[in-house]
Amino acid sequence: MSEADATATTAPDVTIEFDAEGLVPVIAQEQDSGQVLMLAYANAEAITRTTETGLAHYYSRSREELWQKGKTSGNVQHVAAVRIDCDGDTLLYRVSQEGGACHTGHATCFYRSVEGVSHEGSDEDGDGGKEEADTSTPETLSVETEVVDDRVFDPAVYDE
Amino acid sequence: MSEADATATTAPDVTIEFDAEGLVPVIAQEQDSGQVLMLAYANAEAITRTTETGLAHYYSRSREELWQKGKTSGNVQHVAAVRIDCDGDTLLYRVSQEGGACHTGHATCFYRSVEGVSHEGSDEDGDGGKEEADTSTPETLSVETEVVDDRVFDPAVYDE
Repeated sequence: MSEADATATTAPDVTIEFDAEGLVPVIAQEQDSGQVLMLAYANAEAITRTTETGLAHYYSRSREELWQKGKTSGNVQHVAAVRIDCDGDTLLYRVSQEGGACHTGHATCFYRSVEGVSHEGSDEDGDGGKEEADTSTPETLSVETEVVDDRVFDPAVYDE
Repeated sequence: MSEADATATTAPDVTIEFDAEGLVPVIAQEQDSGQVLMLAYANAEAITRTTETGLAHYYSRSREELWQKGKTSGNVQHVAAVRIDCDGDTLLYRVSQEGGACHTGHATCFYRSVEGVSHEGSDEDGDGGKEEADTSTPETLSVETEVVDDRVFDPAVYDE
């Protein structure tokens, strides 16, 4: 904000563009380190609760219910700011994360790096699947991964 | 990676979990500053092209085509790493961004902060819409915003 002038800081109200299920994707980012922690989804109620309480709320697509991050595990997210993107269809929660964000025990859900891509069933000839890469969009795609972020807590204690 | 031991760095291959449209959301993050730049979507071909070329590719849902970020504007993203989340259904591109990421001229698409939430048609009594917050999930949600990130280039030159 330090360099923003009066004109630049004036922005019109934005109508959030929910998808057909009434949801928007939300990126959670640790505000101090900049580490991207997770992607989840929110409905209007989750956004309202988040801004009212300062604690990150989402909507669980699998459980079909409002979900306060860390309510049972204690790994809550204190939300310092909510940002919205140019299209109004994605949010960014800038948070301070208690414990770790991922149920695997890692600080971030993005603890693996993709080291290679192999199309399923396409590499039996040992060519690395390159022939198939340009022809069509396969339904499945396997990637070789490497863990690049250590665990920060015991996942056994994570109960959500 | 510095603290990762041999066991921790061994990770099984991951099958990417595409949605019904064959897409996964992709977060693009500036690797040096940690700034979250944008959220877009990728299909298998976009991911393959990205890993092959080192330049960020996505799939445009509106244009229904493969899309190399910055191909026409020059605002390309050099991809240093691709991360995948615990569920295998979201990617994170760690990039070095030429110019700016957003068509509005801002470095990031998340240049606005949400300063307030108002349910459409619910706040005529001036109670801040609080009565409605706990009852149901409205289809529309308007938010008051403030610009918190300056423009870095003239959007008139942005042609994609």
